[in-house]
Amino acid sequence: MVDDYRVTPWQVEGEVDYERLVREFGTQKIDENLKASISSLTGELHVLIRRGVFFSHRDLDLVLKDYRDGKGFFLYTGRGPSKAMHIGHLLPFVFTKWLQDKFGVNLYVEVTDDEKFLTNQGVTLDEARSWARENILDIIAVGFDPDKTFIFQDTEYIRNMYPRALEISKKLNFSEVKSVFGFEGSANIGWIFYPAIQMVPTMFERKRCLIPSGIDQDPYWRLQRDIAESLGYPKAAQIQSRFLPPLTGISGKMSASQPETAVYLNDDPNTVRKKIMRYAFSGGQSTVELHRKLGGDPWVDIPFIWLYYFFEDDDSKIRKVEEDYRSGRMLTGELKELLTEKLNGFLGNHAVRREEATSKIDVYKFTGKLAQKMWSTVFD
Amino acid sequence: MVDDYRVTPWQVEGEVDYERLVREFGTQKIDENLKASISSLTGELHVLIRRGVFFSHRDLDLVLKDYRDGKGFFLYTGRGPSKAMHIGHLLPFVFTKWLQDKFGVNLYVEVTDDEKFLTNQGVTLDEARSWARENILDIIAVGFDPDKTFIFQDTEYIRNMYPRALEISKKLNFSEVKSVFGFEGSANIGWIFYPAIQMVPTMFERKRCLIPSGIDQDPYWRLQRDIAESLGYPKAAQIQSRFLPPLTGISGKMSASQPETAVYLNDDPNTVRKKIMRYAFSGGQSTVELHRKLGGDPWVDIPFIWLYYFFEDDDSKIRKVEEDYRSGRMLTGELKELLTEKLNGFLGNHAVRREEATSKIDVYKFTGKLAQKMWSTVFD
Repeated sequence: MVDDYRVTPWQVEGEVDYERLVREFGTQKIDENLKASISSLTGELHVLIRRGVFFSHRDLDLVLKDYRDGKGFFLYTGRGPSKAMHIGHLLPFVFTKWLQDKFGVNLYVEVTDDEKFLTNQGVTLDEARSWARENILDIIAVGFDPDKTFIFQDTEYIRNMYPRALEISKKLNFSEVKSVFGFEGSANIGWIFYPAIQMVPTMFERKRCLIPSGIDQDPYWRLQRDIAESLGYPKAAQIQSRFLPPLTGISGKMSASQPETAVYLNDDPNTVRKKIMRYAFSGGQSTVELHRKLGGDPWVDIPFIWLYYFFEDDDSKIRKVEEDYRSGRMLTGELKELLTEKLNGFLGNHAVRREEATSKIDVYKFTGKLAQKMWSTVFD
Repeated sequence: MVDDYRVTPWQVEGEVDYERLVREFGTQKIDENLKASISSLTGELHVLIRRGVFFSHRDLDLVLKDYRDGKGFFLYTGRGPSKAMHIGHLLPFVFTKWLQDKFGVNLYVEVTDDEKFLTNQGVTLDEARSWARENILDIIAVGFDPDKTFIFQDTEYIRNMYPRALEISKKLNFSEVKSVFGFEGSANIGWIFYPAIQMVPTMFERKRCLIPSGIDQDPYWRLQRDIAESLGYPKAAQIQSRFLPPLTGISGKMSASQPETAVYLNDDPNTVRKKIMRYAFSGGQSTVELHRKLGGDPWVDIPFIWLYYFFEDDDSKIRKVEEDYRSGRMLTGELKELLTEKLNGFLGNHAVRREEATSKIDVYKFTGKLAQKMWSTVFD
C-alpha cells in the first residue's frame, strides 16, 4: 500500500486520511457520547470540538472521570517557535484557553527553542530564541489565566527539567525512538535526545496530564505512555486536532515557506483580503451562471471549511451558508467576503491583545503564582 | 586480529597494549623533546610524566607554544562520580594540580552525575548526586587554587551549558557517535546525547583547552576536534595517562566491584597493609632461597610498579629499589612494606585535607572568583 500522505512532528504532506491515522496511531475518535460527557461538565461545546477539528483522543474519558472524582487534571501544550505564527498555529491555544476556563486547571506551555534549532538546519539558536519571544506574545494574547499558566522556554528552564529528562531518557533507547520517529543515522544527537525533554512536562504534576495538540505530535505521547507509569506518573491523555487546511486546498498543512498557503497573525486586513480572494481554493463553478445553476461544493471550498471549523461559531448560520452555497444562491465572492470579514475581525482583536501582552511576559514566565512555584521546583 | 584488550570510556579490559592504542587512537607519544620543553617552562618534571604514566598527548606542543606566546591556555578534567574513589582516580588530579601550580591557569572540573546515572543501569540519580558530593571532597583535598578552579555538577550547571551543548549536538549525528563509541540500538537516548555535554567545557574559554585524563576518554576529544573549529574554538589538546594497574596484576583497571584490586582513598592503614600483603601481585620467587638466588622481576611486580609510577618520587631511590629487587637483595615482603608505608603516608595526608575540604565546597562550586564568573555566564 503506497502512502499518499505523511504525518510526523516535523512534516505533514499530502491529503491526510484522518480515519486511517486514528487506526494507525491507535487513538480513539471523539464520539457523541464523549461530547455529551464534556458538555455535561462545561455547559457547552467549543466550536473546535463541536465541528470536529479536535476529533481524536486518548484517555479523555479518564480525564473527565478524574475531574468528576475531584482528583483534577492539568493541561500541557507547546509551541516550536518560528518566525511568524499563522492562524492554524493559534487555534489549539484558543481551544486550550476554553478548557482552562471551563475546568479552572493549570496550564503549562513549553516553547521548544531547543527543538526548533535542532531540527532545522538553517535556524540558529539566537533566531529560535528571538522567535520564542515573538510567539510567546501571540500565546499570551489568547488570554490564559496568569496565575494558573506557566510559559517557559526549554533553554531557560532546562536546569529544573534536566534531572527528569535524564530519568526519561534512560528508559528510551535509540531503537525505540527510531521506530516511532523514523530517525536515521544522520539524525543529530540533540534531536535524538529531545523527545525526553518534550515528555518532562507531562510529569509536572502527579495528576493526569491532558495535552491539546495537533495529531502530528502523537509519537511523543505514545512513547510517554510506554514509560510514564514506571516513573510513577499516569499515562498522558490527549485531545488531538486535525490541521486547518491551507488556503490553497485541502492537502498538506499551512507552510511558512509558502506564504500564500497561510494567513499570518500579523497579516494586515488588505493582505488577508488579497490572499483569500487570490489563493483560497474555491468549490464554486467557473462562471456565475454555472454556479447559480449547479451550486458549489462546500467541502472542498477552503473559505467554507475555515468558516465551518472556527470562524462562524453559530450553528444555524453556518448551516444556512452551506445550503446557500450548495444551492448556488451564495457566490464564491460572497463566501470569500464573509471569511475576510470574520478573519479580519478576529485578527484585529488579536493585535490589540498582543500589544497588551508585552507588559505581561514576566507574569507568565516568572512572577505569576504558578510560574513562581515552577521556578522553585527541580524535577528529579 | 583478535582484540585481547578493550578500552572505551566505560570499560577497560585485558592487558592494554599502549603502543598500539596510541597508533589506533592517532595520538602522539610524549617524547624526550617534549619533556624538555615542559621542564624548560616548569623547572622540573612531575613524577607522573617523568616515569611515563602521562605518556600520550595531542597538541601539547601547541599548548606550550600558546603559553610561551602569552596567549595562555586552560585546564579541564572531570570525574564520573562513584561510591568511593581509589588511588588510581586521584592521580590525574594530583598531576593536574601540578600543571595549575606551574602555569597558573584556570581549571574546570566537571562532575558528570548525569553520565554516571545514564551509563549504569543500577545507579539512581540520587545516588550519583550524593556520590558527586563525596568525590568533590576528595578532589578539593588535592589543593587546587580556589579562585582559579570551578568544580561543577552537570545536573546543577546545565542551564549555563545547555545552549552550547545544543550547538555541539547539532554537529554530531548518530552514525558519528556510534562509530566512535560503538553505540548499539540499545543505547539510551540520554547516553547518546551525553558526549555533547562532556564537550562543552572545552569551549569555556577562547583559549586552547588542555585536558589531563585517562586515555580511555580519547573518543570524546576526537569528536571535539572534528567540530570545535566550526564553532569558533580551538581543537582541545590532551595529555593522557595509562592506568595505574590493579593490585592483582598488570591486566585491566582497578574496579569498584572487586575491592581487592584497588586501594580506596578511605581505606584505613590496616586495610591497606592487608590488601598489599594479601593481594598485590609479586614478581618475586616462590621461596626466600630462590629469590635470593634468582631475584625478582620488578616490571610485573605491582608494589614496585606503584612505587615507580608515583609513590617513590626520588629517581636514585627507585633505581636502588629496582636493582636490589632484581638482584634478590630486597625481598617481596620488604618491597610490600615500603609501598605500605608510602601509601599510608599519602592517604593520611589526604584524609586530613579531605576533612578540611568540607568547609570549602561552596568556594569551589559557587563563591570563588572563577566560580562566580561561571555562574553569571551562559554559553550560547
